[in-house]
Amino acid sequence: MSDDGREYRIDYFLSAGECNAQSVIPMPTLVQRIIEVSTMHANSTGIGYANLHKRGLAWVLSRISIEMDRYPGINEHFSLTTWIESANRHFSERNVMVTDGSGDVIGYARTIWVAIDMESRRAGDMSAIIDGVPLGDRPCPIARQAKLQPVTVPDMVRHHRFRYCDIDFNRHVNSTRYVETILNEWGVEFFDRNEISRFDIAYMSEIHYNDVVEVVVRNDCGYSEVEIRRDGAACTRARLAFRPVGPQ
Amino acid sequence: MSDDGREYRIDYFLSAGECNAQSVIPMPTLVQRIIEVSTMHANSTGIGYANLHKRGLAWVLSRISIEMDRYPGINEHFSLTTWIESANRHFSERNVMVTDGSGDVIGYARTIWVAIDMESRRAGDMSAIIDGVPLGDRPCPIARQAKLQPVTVPDMVRHHRFRYCDIDFNRHVNSTRYVETILNEWGVEFFDRNEISRFDIAYMSEIHYNDVVEVVVRNDCGYSEVEIRRDGAACTRARLAFRPVGPQ
Repeated sequence: MSDDGREYRIDYFLSAGECNAQSVIPMPTLVQRIIEVSTMHANSTGIGYANLHKRGLAWVLSRISIEMDRYPGINEHFSLTTWIESANRHFSERNVMVTDGSGDVIGYARTIWVAIDMESRRAGDMSAIIDGVPLGDRPCPIARQAKLQPVTVPDMVRHHRFRYCDIDFNRHVNSTRYVETILNEWGVEFFDRNEISRFDIAYMSEIHYNDVVEVVVRNDCGYSEVEIRRDGAACTRARLAFRPVGPQ
Repeated sequence: MSDDGREYRIDYFLSAGECNAQSVIPMPTLVQRIIEVSTMHANSTGIGYANLHKRGLAWVLSRISIEMDRYPGINEHFSLTTWIESANRHFSERNVMVTDGSGDVIGYARTIWVAIDMESRRAGDMSAIIDGVPLGDRPCPIARQAKLQPVTVPDMVRHHRFRYCDIDFNRHVNSTRYVETILNEWGVEFFDRNEISRFDIAYMSEIHYNDVVEVVVRNDCGYSEVEIRRDGAACTRARLAFRPVGPQ
């Protein structure tokens, strides 16, 4: 953590066993790391799980947007640095910078965390604890997430059931598992030729153990849109922009 | 790493977002950590990915056995310490000790890593690099893995297709994904009442992207046996022993 608590950094090493078929960090792992560094920073400034739990409150991840110039590969060191851009009693904007082993910036993420009351599962009030939380002043050059629209006239619809290992300590589907479910709409060969330049996801309502969902994809708009629906209602929406990669 | 290179330790902190429905470390994450500490130790003693890759060799994880007295929970510190018990040109026996934040031992793992020639995908020869690798002398009190037998007269058979996010840098299914696929045969409520006291898994042949497998389970033998089969041939076998847990 920086001396004034405004920033928090974790250094990582990417072992071979963690890498995806393209020998770089999988997007779900990157999302996991973003959640991790955010959690550690929150813990260290008194707005973490332990302090919130006592008050019946929790942070729920509402949106993530990630833009990567390149992805860390096997045996590479990389670091995530996080800071809060803004915070009020209902939500906070938290950013993350990804740097490589040489300290060069290789990507950014923007996240939105919403306060909920754990009992009612509705909007919570962070007034009592959010005052005085130090804000960072580092710029985050990627655009905020635009509102993700419903996916109309899909190209593909697949059914998927969430199982035991998809469920987290809140008893609903883990944030990273939505990312996996979305990426699994494409194949290994597609990702040999294309990598994600920008990934946006909005978590809208919780999915539970054994829920069967529809995963709906539309590709023909310059990017790809994905919606995870249960009983016809959107639970998660995502937008993926790809760029071509050279032969591996 | 210890001064003589015999042992390697990594300290972890378990954040809330990493935990399973029972608010403890998920078994697939524990397996991932075991692979990670093993990889880091191998890298640090010159028998890691980079040195082997140059010689067209790789370590392939063949078996894991894990016995846990208890599992680390939310916001707990824990550590994995690894050492090589024996090594020859074809395989090595590597053990892992799990300790909690107070330094108390809470579990052990035994692993077997086999040398393969990356081109032929057959047995490799580690003679040139394995000599002089320091062995640890810490005892590992859990039993070696007994040969896992075929699952006859199964209670349940489920079909499963492996997708993009299941595939690792070797272009086959990631070791942890077999563990997930096996655990997914049970539900959240079962794991509320039972935890795994011992987990054995043997990796027999590689599964690839888009492969459809049968997951076969038999429960009536004092423990549970699982086999993942493709075209009728076993690719992975596992044995799980459970013990009851108190109400959450």
